[in-house]
Amino acid sequence: MRNLNEDTITQAVIASLNGCRDERLHTVITSLVQHLHSFARETKLTEAEWQAAIAFLTATGHITDDKRQEFILLSDVLGLSTLVTAQNHAKPAGCTEATVFGPFYVTGSPEYRSFDDISNGARGEPCFVRGQVRALDGKAITNALLEVWQADEDGHYDVQLPPGDNGAVEHRARGKLRTDADGRFAFRSILAEPYPIPHDGPVGALLSALGRHPWRPAHLHFMIQARGYETLITHVFRDGDRYLDSDAVFGVRSTLVAQWVRHRPGTAPDGSRVDVPYYTLDYDFVLNPQGSAA
Amino acid sequence: MRNLNEDTITQAVIASLNGCRDERLHTVITSLVQHLHSFARETKLTEAEWQAAIAFLTATGHITDDKRQEFILLSDVLGLSTLVTAQNHAKPAGCTEATVFGPFYVTGSPEYRSFDDISNGARGEPCFVRGQVRALDGKAITNALLEVWQADEDGHYDVQLPPGDNGAVEHRARGKLRTDADGRFAFRSILAEPYPIPHDGPVGALLSALGRHPWRPAHLHFMIQARGYETLITHVFRDGDRYLDSDAVFGVRSTLVAQWVRHRPGTAPDGSRVDVPYYTLDYDFVLNPQGSAA
Ligand SMILES: [Fe+2]
Ligand SMILES: [Fe+2]
Repeated sequence: MRNLNEDTITQAVIASLNGCRDERLHTVITSLVQHLHSFARETKLTEAEWQAAIAFLTATGHITDDKRQEFILLSDVLGLSTLVTAQNHAKPAGCTEATVFGPFYVTGSPEYRSFDDISNGARGEPCFVRGQVRALDGKAITNALLEVWQADEDGHYDVQLPPGDNGAVEHRARGKLRTDADGRFAFRSILAEPYPIPHDGPVGALLSALGRHPWRPAHLHFMIQARGYETLITHVFRDGDRYLDSDAVFGVRSTLVAQWVRHRPGTAPDGSRVDVPYYTLDYDFVLNPQGSAA
Repeated sequence: MRNLNEDTITQAVIASLNGCRDERLHTVITSLVQHLHSFARETKLTEAEWQAAIAFLTATGHITDDKRQEFILLSDVLGLSTLVTAQNHAKPAGCTEATVFGPFYVTGSPEYRSFDDISNGARGEPCFVRGQVRALDGKAITNALLEVWQADEDGHYDVQLPPGDNGAVEHRARGKLRTDADGRFAFRSILAEPYPIPHDGPVGALLSALGRHPWRPAHLHFMIQARGYETLITHVFRDGDRYLDSDAVFGVRSTLVAQWVRHRPGTAPDGSRVDVPYYTLDYDFVLNPQGSAA
């Protein structure tokens, strides 16, 4: 410990963990130190670059608040989120795949009933979404809890917009629904559009320096919970989107790409009259039984 | 890009960097992604652990301000700071070794003259420090700028204490000095004492979970700048300290350990009468010519 140099420091740090009583933490931090040091050695990281990294992490921390999570964005654009999601959700074939959580989920969203309009005033072309939640054997899953969230036509989630008069977020294009006795759900919302991830902060500056764009292909977020099944966190992506092959956060799975069908003005699936063009999306979800693996 | 999984994601992220025009950034981020992903794969990092990491980084960012730099602390306790310092300061034998910068340096410290008392009211036993700044060939380096900073007997740097009446930090036990025509410097300050790094935040919680203590052996910080020489950032450590072999930030070098000599009350090196016991430290520095390497 008194004569550390660039060759001996890694073993010294690992030896300092000998008193750790949490075996898993010991394993994780040992691996972190080895890989962090390997990175610094392999690149022969300079002191100026280290300073830049400290400044980058500080700015990432300072822009993060209860409405913006820049560290999740960072994890997303580095592909770490996709890797962690994938390695923790190996599933039997036939189950709906998971994808990244993203930074825009919030708890406490409003509860709706079938065919309610969850847009709640969010701007965008009308869209009617229908589907069924099933088990692998085709059995309908009743009373499953769906949480849905999406951006408006300007590419903003409600949490990114100025709060209402009472200072709280006005929940728009976001809500909770339950599947019915046949495992079915339906709601009205707005058309999903591509949007850039927030890129006025450190992660946006990084993407720009890397020659990467911040865009995500149009998608709807779903979190689906049902007793006896693994919680599914995923998106449904809109076929034909120009960013499907260059998602800034590496979230696309081909099995999650679906058709949004455009309709002329007329009678919508909820029986109402819509006097502008509207869209429909039909998409079913298959849940993985709890405790199962691929 | 539409069928990424835990095996293909790393190559997809690296491929997304193809448009990067900054060759060095491309190299650094490619290596970062490879090692970050290897870490997550090797540990089979879970989603709960990923969430904990996001929360840890967020807390680290939120506790960081203009007076506290928790990311530097994190880098320090993981040995990254020592590794980066060591691999960037290979020097000819005979030069004074560098060590970690630490989070407590600030610009704008007061200027002093030889034998001034830089403690400026900081609590501690009196200590008189003397030395010479030289080149490798033994030649005295005149007009070198020394910046010195240290903790008080309670283990606090001035920047950790409440600000003065005008809201600004009162600089204590911190100052700038110049070497004289013989390359010599001298100042009065206080005895260096061991102190814990700030451990009321996320890094302290991590150390505790790892079974590590937060203490650093007693030391004085020096930054020495002189025209034609590489800037030296280092500490001098107090021999006999109980933490010399377990420095929380891995900063000790045996060549930087020196004797603080205790004296009975009497006439101090600056000619003044001191009516309590006092200490002296004599330590010389040897600078590396600019552009030189080991
Ligand atoms: Fe999204
Ligand atoms: Fe220190």
